[in-house]
Amino acid sequence: MNIRRFSTRDATFDADLKALLAFETAQDDQIDLVVADILRNVKQRGDAAVLEYTKRFDHLDVAGLSSLEISQVELHAALEALPAAQREALQQAAERVRLYHEKQLMSSWSYTEDDGTLLGQQVTPLDRVGLYVPGGKAAYPSSVLMNAIPAKVAGVEELIMVVPTPNGERNQLVLAAAAVCGVDRVFCIGGAQAVGALAYGTETVPQVDKIVGPGNAYVAAAKRRVFGVVGIDMVAGPSEILVICDGKTNPDWVAMDLFSQAEHDELAQAILLSPDAEFLDKVAASAARLVEEMPRKDIIKTSLQGRGALIQVKDLEEAARISNYIAPEHLELSLDDPLAFSKKIKHAGAIFMGRDTCEALGDYCAGPNHVLPTSRTARFSSPLGVYDFQKRSSLIMVSAEGAQKLGKVAATLAYGEGLQAHARSAEYRLKK
Amino acid sequence: MNIRRFSTRDATFDADLKALLAFETAQDDQIDLVVADILRNVKQRGDAAVLEYTKRFDHLDVAGLSSLEISQVELHAALEALPAAQREALQQAAERVRLYHEKQLMSSWSYTEDDGTLLGQQVTPLDRVGLYVPGGKAAYPSSVLMNAIPAKVAGVEELIMVVPTPNGERNQLVLAAAAVCGVDRVFCIGGAQAVGALAYGTETVPQVDKIVGPGNAYVAAAKRRVFGVVGIDMVAGPSEILVICDGKTNPDWVAMDLFSQAEHDELAQAILLSPDAEFLDKVAASAARLVEEMPRKDIIKTSLQGRGALIQVKDLEEAARISNYIAPEHLELSLDDPLAFSKKIKHAGAIFMGRDTCEALGDYCAGPNHVLPTSRTARFSSPLGVYDFQKRSSLIMVSAEGAQKLGKVAATLAYGEGLQAHARSAEYRLKK
Repeated sequence: MNIRRFSTRDATFDADLKALLAFETAQDDQIDLVVADILRNVKQRGDAAVLEYTKRFDHLDVAGLSSLEISQVELHAALEALPAAQREALQQAAERVRLYHEKQLMSSWSYTEDDGTLLGQQVTPLDRVGLYVPGGKAAYPSSVLMNAIPAKVAGVEELIMVVPTPNGERNQLVLAAAAVCGVDRVFCIGGAQAVGALAYGTETVPQVDKIVGPGNAYVAAAKRRVFGVVGIDMVAGPSEILVICDGKTNPDWVAMDLFSQAEHDELAQAILLSPDAEFLDKVAASAARLVEEMPRKDIIKTSLQGRGALIQVKDLEEAARISNYIAPEHLELSLDDPLAFSKKIKHAGAIFMGRDTCEALGDYCAGPNHVLPTSRTARFSSPLGVYDFQKRSSLIMVSAEGAQKLGKVAATLAYGEGLQAHARSAEYRLKK
Repeated sequence: MNIRRFSTRDATFDADLKALLAFETAQDDQIDLVVADILRNVKQRGDAAVLEYTKRFDHLDVAGLSSLEISQVELHAALEALPAAQREALQQAAERVRLYHEKQLMSSWSYTEDDGTLLGQQVTPLDRVGLYVPGGKAAYPSSVLMNAIPAKVAGVEELIMVVPTPNGERNQLVLAAAAVCGVDRVFCIGGAQAVGALAYGTETVPQVDKIVGPGNAYVAAAKRRVFGVVGIDMVAGPSEILVICDGKTNPDWVAMDLFSQAEHDELAQAILLSPDAEFLDKVAASAARLVEEMPRKDIIKTSLQGRGALIQVKDLEEAARISNYIAPEHLELSLDDPLAFSKKIKHAGAIFMGRDTCEALGDYCAGPNHVLPTSRTARFSSPLGVYDFQKRSSLIMVSAEGAQKLGKVAATLAYGEGLQAHARSAEYRLKK
């Protein structure tokens, strides 16, 4: 296996790094047209359209959409039927994720000024949220936990999950995860038709206020299109890890940490920064040896050879600067005093500190969310959280006295902007 | 002037309300194609492309983009040249907006578990933000304040404003507002080419991490397209106000408050809910009389006749329910004990409480932001705030002891999902 090597001393390093990171989520026009058609149909014809697409794409032929709903009894049966170790792991993970996310809850606040004017923000949960769960190979129960628990902690009243079940095959781990999280309703539908059903509502599927969760290119295109009608989470790119190591961690550990992103997807990106050239050699050797043992070795090789890199930096200061440029989804600080080092990090989805903190712990059970900004979007966005399922309303209650002072300021500015009704409405409240 | 009247007792009320609110921001395919072309060109050719479009659309022919930058000296000169009353109003408004937004600052947090594992979130500002300010009739200095101040409070290092100046005409109020807010750099460019310059960066215009601010259909389409490369704020629809009144407020005041939204735009929406039919008559009479005095009476009439409504409700409880369905951008509670009533409100951009609190105060100087969710999006989104210019990174530092417990849970779940490298990387940290 040949993972690319760079050094920041290379004359072409800046251009090489830019090329390495280049990734544009191509918006496929053909997919977009198909999706537009599906959405229009679902909006106009509701259940009937969803049933037709489900028959065509998932080979499920049923009389009514209600027969594609999975009952709470079935969800809990799926949980009970799991091997004990798996059930307990799921419950322990859910409990830790819940505890962490409870720290994110925002509360309403207000303050009153001397003249009695009250200002603040009222924080409320979204009413109803849709959770998309992919079918097939990317159906991860951990993903159900990470999307559903923040919504429930926020106080969302009704959480509606959709999951395609081609040929009627149901993923029992996913259903068990839904039971653990208290998902309220589950429909066996998927694709753009499921996104449309959630966004517009049908006779059977209630309209939601926001749709979250990962999906394929059709689902992503559908989410982009219904944005505005409902809220959506980020459209995620391929997964990424950046490891910064001082050279003193077991190279096998670092190689396996790189694999743990690479195994997700051929387009996943795993990069190691170290000032120690010999250590980079050792990690390369570990990777070459260990990859042959991995069941997903083909994916890992394609990912690491196509988009991975081992980069020699001058020192750890330079590593921090490069990391801030990359703004990685996952950042491992495998070095001494990682907490102090973390203060140098400006942009990252999640920061894993210390040699014992492998990224896999964060994916499942440390507590923080595993839905994180990819493709350099950590420059401006955050992990999925409770705050994504709450929203704020400004509170303004101006006292009669406050209205005298503010009214004059507002009227002056309103006249300046040529908005006379604004000015007059403020002036009405002035005591003559 | 004929404003539509409804009663919730009408058999067709639900359908009438839905039709009244129906508004889809049409995504014009023709505009979208033009914008795609402009963005591609700016991305590839940088300054040269921006200069060509600026010549074509704004009739400004200059040798280099740097000659379209406005210096800090000019910005401050614009502020000094204002009439004293206007300058002071601008400064007072800015100060109040700043004080309010300082309450929104998020801080980093973390906690340590019994076994020494640390979890938390690190909060950091965005590095660089672009602020789009429209030219022409919609160039509002208050809009500069409302977009720039939260960014500066968040700690954004560099705030870059773009504003088109067709034929070289510069709006002195807008430049003065930029000076008041501490905008760092200003370029006289606009349209999709300005959005492209900010998103991709050119030789002269630095690349930003997020673009905020209102714009026309071309600007909105460009923002949608660059979303992902940079962050964007919401794409706003027409402005809206909903007034809930018990019938005891001066009907002239309520009519003028409805005007203050209607005067923005022919498509703006102003709705009044009251249980008092006679009061609705009085407001209609006030509106018919007062509109003739308004300089913007044509816009107000078109807006109120096309999209306005006076709705008789059974009682104020019902008014709250209807308001939660509408999820208005601006909600005025013109009634007794508005603070108690506000607890019934689940979805609204801003809640103006009490007969003295006209919406115009909030537009300019009460303190809260005037960039608010429109078109029912208050169901899932919030006013623009400091939180839009900060982002979070998860912090995870697992102790050696914690890694034992968490490693087993993670490995169990990872094997369940068929992700063996995840499992192995967690198992490496287990002490044999």
